[in-house]
Amino acid sequence: MYDVIIIGSGVAGMTAALYALRSNKKVLVLERENYGGQIAKSPKVENYPTLKTVSGAELSDKIFDQIIDLGVTFELEDVESIVKNGKTFEVKTNYNTYEALSVVIANGVTARKLKLENEEKFLGNGVYYCAICDGPFFAGKDVTLVGDGNSAMQYALMLAGYCSKVTMVTMFDRFFGEKALEDAIRDNSKIELIQNAVASGLIGDEKLEKVEFTTNEGNKFVINTNALFVAIGQVPDNAKFANVVDIDKAGYIVANETCHTKTDGLFVAGDCRVKSVRQVATAIGDGAVAGTEAVNYINTLK
Amino acid sequence: MYDVIIIGSGVAGMTAALYALRSNKKVLVLERENYGGQIAKSPKVENYPTLKTVSGAELSDKIFDQIIDLGVTFELEDVESIVKNGKTFEVKTNYNTYEALSVVIANGVTARKLKLENEEKFLGNGVYYCAICDGPFFAGKDVTLVGDGNSAMQYALMLAGYCSKVTMVTMFDRFFGEKALEDAIRDNSKIELIQNAVASGLIGDEKLEKVEFTTNEGNKFVINTNALFVAIGQVPDNAKFANVVDIDKAGYIVANETCHTKTDGLFVAGDCRVKSVRQVATAIGDGAVAGTEAVNYINTLK
Repeated sequence: MYDVIIIGSGVAGMTAALYALRSNKKVLVLERENYGGQIAKSPKVENYPTLKTVSGAELSDKIFDQIIDLGVTFELEDVESIVKNGKTFEVKTNYNTYEALSVVIANGVTARKLKLENEEKFLGNGVYYCAICDGPFFAGKDVTLVGDGNSAMQYALMLAGYCSKVTMVTMFDRFFGEKALEDAIRDNSKIELIQNAVASGLIGDEKLEKVEFTTNEGNKFVINTNALFVAIGQVPDNAKFANVVDIDKAGYIVANETCHTKTDGLFVAGDCRVKSVRQVATAIGDGAVAGTEAVNYINTLK
Repeated sequence: MYDVIIIGSGVAGMTAALYALRSNKKVLVLERENYGGQIAKSPKVENYPTLKTVSGAELSDKIFDQIIDLGVTFELEDVESIVKNGKTFEVKTNYNTYEALSVVIANGVTARKLKLENEEKFLGNGVYYCAICDGPFFAGKDVTLVGDGNSAMQYALMLAGYCSKVTMVTMFDRFFGEKALEDAIRDNSKIELIQNAVASGLIGDEKLEKVEFTTNEGNKFVINTNALFVAIGQVPDNAKFANVVDIDKAGYIVANETCHTKTDGLFVAGDCRVKSVRQVATAIGDGAVAGTEAVNYINTLK
């Protein structure tokens, strides 16, 4: 029997573990792929307070070291279900079933991909999914952005704040978001808007050099660019927890900043919950809250 | 004219600055005392993800270096008022009046003190205000706690999870918080409860060794202890902003995790807003949100 089982070892899950372990709780972290989550694939992180510049992998290593030192149990297993029986949670993985007094879901999201050849290869070498994080590395340069929702529009305006030119390509002849953002984009002389086209090829040697687009009428054109920002959505993976949490239309777990779900003793932290800004810094905040709330829950359990 | 004025240079304010600066905004940080805020006075921090052990001053220095590198303007001035005129905020200090398109209030809180001689001297050397942060340094040892609210009760239970004994002293013969916490405290054999007494003296040479208490009937007694945790509340300092924000009964600025206040373009981050868990990690999360939201606000301002 564990005190806390944490599902996912991105920065949110590891921070929840850090907090529970420092309160002397017995903690199991279950991870499907590799610790660190999304940020571990980022070659350069410059917006984490205290670390001027660091790779995402190094950042993840540092937190993993902290929780290993504090005695966390870490297993590479894929969680299939959570069931609550009385006061005990049963967490079933592809290999085992574990029991705990409380559970934190921190399984993150994945950025929706273009599904083009070389996309994985160019990740961090010209292809990026977060303009807040990686945009500033291209100050003074031309960049390209695909997407048509609020995040894409916010990214375009941010990039236009320091890039020499932003070419924004949308799939249809309209945006899917706030009118104020659209107006600001249309008024911004540094943003060139190309509509009715989708990225169809990523071209380059070591790093991305050009992006091929195909119009809705079937014509192709190529843009030379330093970076392609892809903002076409994120994919949570919470459907398997629908028996114990509420899930919104986009697939995120419903919870406010207290990280409480509708099930007592079950908490949610990081990108997988409903929230406005998904950053390492906000995931860390969630981890601290979920870890603390889990400890408080256990300490008053009868 | 600045893009963003940030009031307070604790970790929340500095993180908001980091995010706004990386979006190429012109940022002024106004600080009354010293950068780092509350955590800068903590001799040892072991719950900040990525830093296994660090002093609060060193942690603060690292973030301050980041924002200085990015070109922040930093002034040691005490903010007296915020007024919004049209789309412009006027921030008046004891020396100057500054203008900006957006403002982030991140002026923190101070822990309520016992107001005893030597309290400042023993801060970090036996006297602590945050058991989540500093409790684990006393694993296996006897500690003392004063306070009677929810935080104090949660702290007592956390400390009992790893300390050999927790002596909890309350001012009256009752608690002021959740019944479940009170029940758990009364059921916990590691917690000794002493009621109707207040701390009246801090005794020790280099570090705290004993605490003198005075009962409500005027009798004195002394407890030998390794650490005294003081959980008698926190003091926000937001009254001067009442013209532009809503303030709750306890003095905190009303805002949810989006960090928006009731005034467009005015955001709030960190301990000074209504929230459940006040930690460096959650302040960092707030800073990232407030910085990002301020940038988004400015980018769509007409």
